[in-house]
Amino acid sequence: MSTTNTEFLADFAAMSGFGATPGGGVDRQAGTPADHATRQWFGGWLAQHGYTETVDEAGNQFGTIELLPGAPYVLIGSHLDSQPLAGRYDGAYGVLAAAHAGARVAAELRAGTVEPACNLAVVNWFNEEGSRFTPSMMGSSVFTGKLPLMDALATTDPAGVSVAQALAAGHRAADAGAPVLAHIARYAEIHIEQGRNLEESGTQVGIVDRTWAASKYRVTVDGAQSHTGATRMQDRRDALYGAALVIAAARDLAAEFEPGLLHTSVSELYVLPNSPVTIARQAVMNLDLRSPDESVLARAMELLGKAVADAEARSRTEIGLELTHRWGLVAYQPEGVALGIASAERLGFSHTEIMTVAGHDSTNLKDVVPTVMLFVPSVEGISHNEAEYTRDEDAVRGVELLTEVVRRLVRGELAAG
Amino acid sequence: MSTTNTEFLADFAAMSGFGATPGGGVDRQAGTPADHATRQWFGGWLAQHGYTETVDEAGNQFGTIELLPGAPYVLIGSHLDSQPLAGRYDGAYGVLAAAHAGARVAAELRAGTVEPACNLAVVNWFNEEGSRFTPSMMGSSVFTGKLPLMDALATTDPAGVSVAQALAAGHRAADAGAPVLAHIARYAEIHIEQGRNLEESGTQVGIVDRTWAASKYRVTVDGAQSHTGATRMQDRRDALYGAALVIAAARDLAAEFEPGLLHTSVSELYVLPNSPVTIARQAVMNLDLRSPDESVLARAMELLGKAVADAEARSRTEIGLELTHRWGLVAYQPEGVALGIASAERLGFSHTEIMTVAGHDSTNLKDVVPTVMLFVPSVEGISHNEAEYTRDEDAVRGVELLTEVVRRLVRGELAAG
Repeated sequence: MSTTNTEFLADFAAMSGFGATPGGGVDRQAGTPADHATRQWFGGWLAQHGYTETVDEAGNQFGTIELLPGAPYVLIGSHLDSQPLAGRYDGAYGVLAAAHAGARVAAELRAGTVEPACNLAVVNWFNEEGSRFTPSMMGSSVFTGKLPLMDALATTDPAGVSVAQALAAGHRAADAGAPVLAHIARYAEIHIEQGRNLEESGTQVGIVDRTWAASKYRVTVDGAQSHTGATRMQDRRDALYGAALVIAAARDLAAEFEPGLLHTSVSELYVLPNSPVTIARQAVMNLDLRSPDESVLARAMELLGKAVADAEARSRTEIGLELTHRWGLVAYQPEGVALGIASAERLGFSHTEIMTVAGHDSTNLKDVVPTVMLFVPSVEGISHNEAEYTRDEDAVRGVELLTEVVRRLVRGELAAG
Repeated sequence: MSTTNTEFLADFAAMSGFGATPGGGVDRQAGTPADHATRQWFGGWLAQHGYTETVDEAGNQFGTIELLPGAPYVLIGSHLDSQPLAGRYDGAYGVLAAAHAGARVAAELRAGTVEPACNLAVVNWFNEEGSRFTPSMMGSSVFTGKLPLMDALATTDPAGVSVAQALAAGHRAADAGAPVLAHIARYAEIHIEQGRNLEESGTQVGIVDRTWAASKYRVTVDGAQSHTGATRMQDRRDALYGAALVIAAARDLAAEFEPGLLHTSVSELYVLPNSPVTIARQAVMNLDLRSPDESVLARAMELLGKAVADAEARSRTEIGLELTHRWGLVAYQPEGVALGIASAERLGFSHTEIMTVAGHDSTNLKDVVPTVMLFVPSVEGISHNEAEYTRDEDAVRGVELLTEVVRRLVRGELAAG
């Protein structure tokens, strides 16, 4: 059954009611009741629009339309889970856009106006955000063989609940018939930009051609507990002070380079024992460095090493950095970019090639199947915030672009690489 | 029944088994199973040594010996609860020393060698540490009328468990006959120094004559959530960066004054949403400033105000400071200090008047009844740490000093002020 843009916007508004927050955003971290409710609603939507719903063991939720028995799938999707107190667009926009695009193309296939070379599948990847269960992009990492299923299921949140428990608590049980990687011929995803490049340049759509390089570390600062009042300043080995010096140094690092060449963040910090009258014995935090230039990342880490040594000396602590994730400046397949551009031109949308700073499920998929990644503008680039917003006209333009891309993929454009 | 120093050390070793940690310390935060177990053991000890055990509604545990029906009590004690991963001496030493001192004096009273003017009571104050339930010194604050009982009972820990629930979960129920403030004529407490002044000067015991002045704040840094990768550095309003600048500035403040004139600490920090891919919207932390000179505290807060304004500008956040506790440079009664000195001289112990930087239950009691506060040395001043240590000879010397003080108090020295 085909859909209209008005229906898309109405569906998006309805879906945004799950885990809705007072500030106009959503809060539906992976495997929480709000995530379960959104998935259940989406499963109902899929059934009403001619899809067959299945779920795999990693919690990825699929809707398939099989018109050419035995043929591989064009897979389209993103993720319905969110950060805490997040916006309604991040991920969720892409899943619903995929579902509508798939329904539109399926209607054309049934009407015989398009000749299929593939079947169609829509996906809601489990736990893209990684805020409750680390690492992020968990579902697509398992699907693409980068993360063992057992490791994903055993991952626990800060309260000690495992992914397996969270899935069992409210997700539909896994189906034997859910798609696996071998069934997938091509992948497409659309997402809000989460930056302000499209908005500032007045461009309607972006075709993602590369990801920024990123290095992520776990930083552990080891000091010694002592009394906050009685301990002489020179006797202290204050882990939280050591952490504060590293946080400030990481931020100052960005100012050493031209604006836009280095993004640095520390956003997660655990302090032990975190008592008002005991100096911290340990602080553990993340450290996230990203750049569109790998040599900048290397230089930044060199500078950071010096800042860390200085922080150790000043706070009398020991600071360890463990690399947890690293990816280089990776290109999306040029053929996929060309297909995205051709689709935008066919529809008369202004467009540009664009880099993504954020990771997406397509970052995993592009390594194993030909992939097309699309962006629509984010107002003021705000994301991971209740105020995240994409204008309706941009949102429906994205659905139309994704529909054109899927139409071409289903016809067999973009041969497997 | 009197006791020997050997029995004291054996009892102390036995008591230190409750909540024992692999590093040789204890972990028995207020109202936890380890705290319950220690209290139960201590209740048994009291019963075996001629005390009657009672508990009041704030969870304070008493042992009374009534030899002069209707007469007021000399109260002696400290606290059995601890910080997380703490030492075995902080508080617990003082409670057991009090119990032994009381038993020794009671034996003398029964033998007729001392003529009593008062009865005797030992106390284990509930939640002196304040690590699980804030504020600290909770039990003695309720007992002295500084904190309403209902407020104390409604206080919750970070997991949402209230003091009332924690008490009901394992503490002996409240007894109608527990002592109240009106029954108390004098108070005495002994504690480890938690600093290194006695050790460095080679002095055997300290008589506390004053407390350092202290100001404690709750600091709230308000920023805005955004994506750790995609958000441009200049668009960020990073609450954790703002907090890091304040933590570093507070520490650097101490270096503006002569060593020993200002102690500053930040030891407890909560970050929201504390996600690896979302910049913090809020950070809430404590800030603890202490000085033996009130003008230094005032000057420090002036300097800190400037550092906070700078941190706000650099991090594009709003930083609020709320004063949560404040006490000036407060003296213990000179008569109590004189009694402590006379007791030390009588026993031939080297002694000194000493200030306390840390707060103690006696800080509350001295405001309402004549009080004597004693210190024994802490090796290297280490406290709130598993390595906290006081030598056996210092520990038993303290029991002997406290016994002499109690002997004098029970005879009626140190008339009510």
